Amino acid sequence: MTGYVAKLGAAVARNSSLLCVGLDGEHSRLPDHLRDLPPAEALVAFNRALIDATFDVVAAYKPNLAFYEALGPAGMEAFRQTVAHVPAGIPVIADAKRGDIDHTTRAYATALFDVYGCDAVTASPYLGRDALAPFLDRADRGTYILCRTSNPGAADIAELDVAGEPLYVRVAERAPKWTTHGNIGLVVGATAPAQLARVRAVAPGVPILLPGVGAQGGDLEASLAAGLDQAGAGLLVVAARQVMYASSGRQFAEAARTAALELRERIESARATVVAAR
Amino acid sequence: MTGYVAKLGAAVARNSSLLCVGLDGEHSRLPDHLRDLPPAEALVAFNRALIDATFDVVAAYKPNLAFYEALGPAGMEAFRQTVAHVPAGIPVIADAKRGDIDHTTRAYATALFDVYGCDAVTASPYLGRDALAPFLDRADRGTYILCRTSNPGAADIAELDVAGEPLYVRVAERAPKWTTHGNIGLVVGATAPAQLARVRAVAPGVPILLPGVGAQGGDLEASLAAGLDQAGAGLLVVAARQVMYASSGRQFAEAARTAALELRERIESARATVVAAR
Repeated sequence: MTGYVAKLGAAVARNSSLLCVGLDGEHSRLPDHLRDLPPAEALVAFNRALIDATFDVVAAYKPNLAFYEALGPAGMEAFRQTVAHVPAGIPVIADAKRGDIDHTTRAYATALFDVYGCDAVTASPYLGRDALAPFLDRADRGTYILCRTSNPGAADIAELDVAGEPLYVRVAERAPKWTTHGNIGLVVGATAPAQLARVRAVAPGVPILLPGVGAQGGDLEASLAAGLDQAGAGLLVVAARQVMYASSGRQFAEAARTAALELRERIESARATVVAAR
Repeated sequence: MTGYVAKLGAAVARNSSLLCVGLDGEHSRLPDHLRDLPPAEALVAFNRALIDATFDVVAAYKPNLAFYEALGPAGMEAFRQTVAHVPAGIPVIADAKRGDIDHTTRAYATALFDVYGCDAVTASPYLGRDALAPFLDRADRGTYILCRTSNPGAADIAELDVAGEPLYVRVAERAPKWTTHGNIGLVVGATAPAQLARVRAVAPGVPILLPGVGAQGGDLEASLAAGLDQAGAGLLVVAARQVMYASSGRQFAEAARTAALELRERIESARATVVAAR
């Protein structure tokens, strides 16, 4: 294995961690002493401190593009500097949820993989396989396809009944077959452990990106029981606000490290329990 | 009516046009004499010339974010300058196809509506109503929700059978009810007139954004027959490559104007035929 999957696996092993820290700082919630800086500079300073404090505790980082785009062109420069600051051995997942026709997705792949240097991306399944091909054809990069998201309204569309199974199960069955590179994962929210278990049943070997623990109220232990693969891996637990905003004081980075360490331990402990019970 | 819908209606009436010109220039396809400029500057120069040559012929402009993001932070500055150059009476639709949880969509709304000043956005339905609320709650802005896209693989997911109707029909039935502001449209590709007719039947009064005429091979006349509303309106015909790249010489803007005028006439002629037959 090469590329994203191998890089992620190495980071998981090296740091004994399934924790993926979000880098989604909003200016109004940054530590007081950073808010005097221009917003994009404040975000870079915040992210660098978070990365320096957690890079040996995490399996990956996941910046969400929205929070950089909201700062205008300077925000994209902050995104560039943030990705560049992540140590070479830690993969960066661009949480972009993109999806457009192939011609356009090619431009998004250029942006996220080549211009900004991310290792993986999140994408929408709605337009179908050919629309995601420019992501999927990059054998050295990963693509996590939205399956069953963590928000309350996820049921509006993704749980519509498609011949006896909800749509998200059909996505879980189909999307991983959209490439032979083995570089497709699924996004499944921690707020719905029963749905997560269903996805794991139909996609036993597919990597899952799991947002929704923490601020959104997802149950960590139930999610690990439902979503770990047979080897007790194959899952990345996303934590953003509970790590980023662990403290709003000058010691925010140390507080973020403490929060990340505690979360990693909770994950490892629950993981051991799940594996032992199998 | 106020906001986007009124602004669009006024532009349609003033310019007698249902034409929406895409502003999606790729550096490799720009006129030779512009390619000596840095890519982002070349794109701004190209867009300004296109806008100056067509602003009295179009109903709206639709820049796709991917082609700006692919140029890095400077590309987003080019996006800002492009939107700022559009005359005040012509709406700008940010073709972004975004969709994330509400907290994050709020940041996208800030970026696209407030920072860059766009009038409308394209968005994915996959995450459901609450995820799009920060777009939809902006009563003065428009949101076009992906319904049945123009690409060959659109059938992979959007045509899965949901209790006797394809998924895209379920989206067309449901998504327009996700707000009471009357500011929701649907994206339906011109490459599938039968599907477009089906959408128009279940969403008779909903504005439709119609890409896929031109480079993608959609049938303009068949699409207008299928997609115009009872008043012979309610549709925006997107043309990008066939207008932008009408010529690669120094006269590219004049050639683009000629292409836009011809297309507007074809649309108006077909529209008159459709209305007369009703």
